Amino acid sequence: MKTDFTRLLAPRTESMASSAIREILKVAKRPGMTSLAGGIPAPETFPMDILEHLFSEVLDRWGPSAFQYDLTEGFVPLREAAVSYLRRYSVEASTEEIMVSSGSQGLLDAIGKILIGPGDAVAVESPTYLGALQAFNPYGPRYVEIETDEKGAIPESLEEVLKKDKPKFVYLVPTFQNPTGRTLTLERRKAIAEIIVRHGALLVEDDPYAALRYRGDTVPSIKSMAPDHVLYGTTFSKVFAPGLRVGLAVPPPGELGTWLVKAKQGTDLHTSTLSQAMAAVYLEGGYLEERLPLICAHYAPRLESMLEAMKEFFPSDWSWSRPEGGMFLWAECPEGTNIINMYEKALSRNVAFVPGRYFYADPAGGSRTMRLNFTNADPDVLRQAIRTLGELI
Amino acid sequence: MKTDFTRLLAPRTESMASSAIREILKVAKRPGMTSLAGGIPAPETFPMDILEHLFSEVLDRWGPSAFQYDLTEGFVPLREAAVSYLRRYSVEASTEEIMVSSGSQGLLDAIGKILIGPGDAVAVESPTYLGALQAFNPYGPRYVEIETDEKGAIPESLEEVLKKDKPKFVYLVPTFQNPTGRTLTLERRKAIAEIIVRHGALLVEDDPYAALRYRGDTVPSIKSMAPDHVLYGTTFSKVFAPGLRVGLAVPPPGELGTWLVKAKQGTDLHTSTLSQAMAAVYLEGGYLEERLPLICAHYAPRLESMLEAMKEFFPSDWSWSRPEGGMFLWAECPEGTNIINMYEKALSRNVAFVPGRYFYADPAGGSRTMRLNFTNADPDVLRQAIRTLGELI
Repeated sequence: MKTDFTRLLAPRTESMASSAIREILKVAKRPGMTSLAGGIPAPETFPMDILEHLFSEVLDRWGPSAFQYDLTEGFVPLREAAVSYLRRYSVEASTEEIMVSSGSQGLLDAIGKILIGPGDAVAVESPTYLGALQAFNPYGPRYVEIETDEKGAIPESLEEVLKKDKPKFVYLVPTFQNPTGRTLTLERRKAIAEIIVRHGALLVEDDPYAALRYRGDTVPSIKSMAPDHVLYGTTFSKVFAPGLRVGLAVPPPGELGTWLVKAKQGTDLHTSTLSQAMAAVYLEGGYLEERLPLICAHYAPRLESMLEAMKEFFPSDWSWSRPEGGMFLWAECPEGTNIINMYEKALSRNVAFVPGRYFYADPAGGSRTMRLNFTNADPDVLRQAIRTLGELI
Repeated sequence: MKTDFTRLLAPRTESMASSAIREILKVAKRPGMTSLAGGIPAPETFPMDILEHLFSEVLDRWGPSAFQYDLTEGFVPLREAAVSYLRRYSVEASTEEIMVSSGSQGLLDAIGKILIGPGDAVAVESPTYLGALQAFNPYGPRYVEIETDEKGAIPESLEEVLKKDKPKFVYLVPTFQNPTGRTLTLERRKAIAEIIVRHGALLVEDDPYAALRYRGDTVPSIKSMAPDHVLYGTTFSKVFAPGLRVGLAVPPPGELGTWLVKAKQGTDLHTSTLSQAMAAVYLEGGYLEERLPLICAHYAPRLESMLEAMKEFFPSDWSWSRPEGGMFLWAECPEGTNIINMYEKALSRNVAFVPGRYFYADPAGGSRTMRLNFTNADPDVLRQAIRTLGELI
C-alpha cells in the first residue's frame, strides 16, 4: 500500500512550507562567504573558560536534581536568580511570576497555542521577526500590520489596528528589533503603553537584545509601563549561549501564565534542567555582570565599522537604520533597485545578506529592503563586505 | 480596562484544562508519602560519577559548537552515535534518517502539529499514555480506541478501527506500556505490522522503556517489521537522565520527517545542544552499555518485590499485569470495588497511586483500574505499601 504519508498532513501544515530564508542561510554558510545573513551570536562571546566551573557548581549544588524531571514552569533556582536579573530590563517580577521557556521560540509557540484560533487577528510590526511568524503560523492567524518608521512602531497605526481589527494580541520587538535594529523611543513606549491599557489589549514584548547596548541610554521596557497588559519575554541566547535554549517570560497577572504552562507541558514537559541550572549559576555567580561588558565590547566595533563603511560606500539615496546595539542593521534602497538581483550578484562575490521581504507578514512587503547582520565578522571583513555591496549598487 | 485575558483564549485551549492527575502527583510528593503514583526514574540510576568527565569531553570535542545554535533535526554527532544505539531496539536507520526531539513529548507534539486537523480520528490503545493525549489534544483529535488485553493491543480491534474510522495514525506503546506495563507479544507485533502495511496506515511506535528489561527475551520493535509504515520514537529519559529532554525519532521514509523538522523549528528551533552533546558522548564512550545493566539491576528487585507482595496481599479476584521490565504495573479490581474511595483511604495511610481512569481517551473508561509505579522506592518499602493497599481492599 501507498506510503506517501504527506496525504495525512493537517491543513495547518501548509503554513510551515519550507521558507526561502532557510535556503539563504544555507548558501550563506558556504566556505569563503562573508555572511551578513545570519543572526547568530559570535562563539567568541561564549564564556568557554568558566563552563567547567559552572558545571561543577551545578553538580555541587543540585546533584541529580539538575538531571531529573522538573517543573514545567521552570527550575526554581533559575527563576529566583532571574528576579534581580530582570530588573536590568526594568521588569519587576517575583519568582512565581517568572516562567522558563525553551528559548524565545518556545514562548512564542506557547503564546500561539493558547491564544490564536484560526482566522484570529494578530498585530505585528511591518517588518517583524520571522521566527514569531513561524511560531504563530501553525495556529492559523490573520496578520494585521502596524506601520513603523525609524523610531519603531507608530502609535497611531497601532491604535487604528486595535480599533479596526481587535487583534488577540500585539507582538512587538521594541529594542534593537530583528530585522531592523530599530529601538522604539521612550515617548512612543509611553504612548503605546497608554494605548494598550486604554484598549484593554494584550502586548507581547519580545526583548532578546536589550542587554546588547553599545552606546546611548537604556530605554525601559514597555512591561515596566503597563505590567498588567504586557507578556514579557527574553532569552539567554545573546547573553550566555543560544544552544542552551533557555528563555524567560513574565506574563501579566491572572490566568494567562497558568495556560502558558499547561500548553508547554503538552509541548515539551519542561526545558532542559541542565540548561536551566547552567543559566542559574551563570546569573547567581555574577558571571553575567562580568561578561556582558565583554560581549558588548566585542560587538561595538563591528557595528561602528559597518555604519562607517555604509556611510562611505553606500549611495546617498539609500537609507539605513543606525542602531545603538543588537545584531542587525536595516537598509532600504530607492525605487527602481532590484534587491533580489543584487542578492544574486552579491553571492557571486561571496557576500550574503537577507532580502528584507522575508520579514513581512504581507508577502508583498519589503521588496526594497535588506537585513545586514554585523555580529559574525571582524570589523575589517565587514568593511570589505559593505564595500563590495556598495560597488554592486 | 479589563485585563482578564482568559477571554482571549483560543477554543483549543479548553483541551488543556488542568488534569486531575497533576493534583494527584502533587499530593504524592507530600513528605512521608510512599508514592506509587509517579513515573520518574530513580535518581540513583543517573551516572553522577561520570558527568564531569562527560562534560569535559563535550568541551574538548566540540567547544563553542556545543553551546551554539544548531540544526533543527539534531546535533550530528548524536545522530551518528544513535545509528548503532538504535540497533538495540532493532531499528535500522542512517544518521540522516534520525532526528532529535525535545524528549518524547516534543516528538508527540510535532506529530500532532503536522497530522491532526480538528476532528481527525487518532487511534490509541485503551488505556494509553496520558502524555500523548496531552500532546495531541490541542490539535483537536477525535480518539478512537483499540481494545487491549494482557498481551497488549488486540490486532482484530486495530483492524476494525482502521476500517471504520480511517485514523490519521495509530499510536502504540508496545513495550512495557505506560500505564499497564504490558508488552505486545511477538505474534501480535507481526499481525499488527501486517495489518498496518495492508491498510497503508501510519503507526507511531513510542518506545521509551524497551531497554529496561529485567527478565525474559527482547521483542523486536514493530518498526523492524514495517519500516516504511512506522514512525519510531525513543528517549534518553530512562537510560541516561530525563532532565536533559532528549529523544530520538526515526520517521518512515518520505517527506514526513521533513515536516516534523519544520514543525519543530517553529516550536523550539532545536533541542538544547548541550543536552544533545552530553547524550552523544554518553553513547560514544560506551557508557550506556556499561550503565544499562546497573539501571536494570536497580529496578529488577523492585518489580519482583511488588509482584510478590501483590500475590501475598491482594485478593484473588483482583488481576494485575506481570511486566518483565519498565516502570509500571496495572491492577484491576472486581466489579463493585470503588477505586476512588480506595485512593482516598490509601492517601490517609500515606500511600499514593494513580486511579487508572486518567489513562483512557474515553472519560468513562478504567474505573476499576489503578497504575502502580515500582521504580521509586526500595523493595521493602514497596512491599509495605502493597500490604497497606491489600489491607484497604
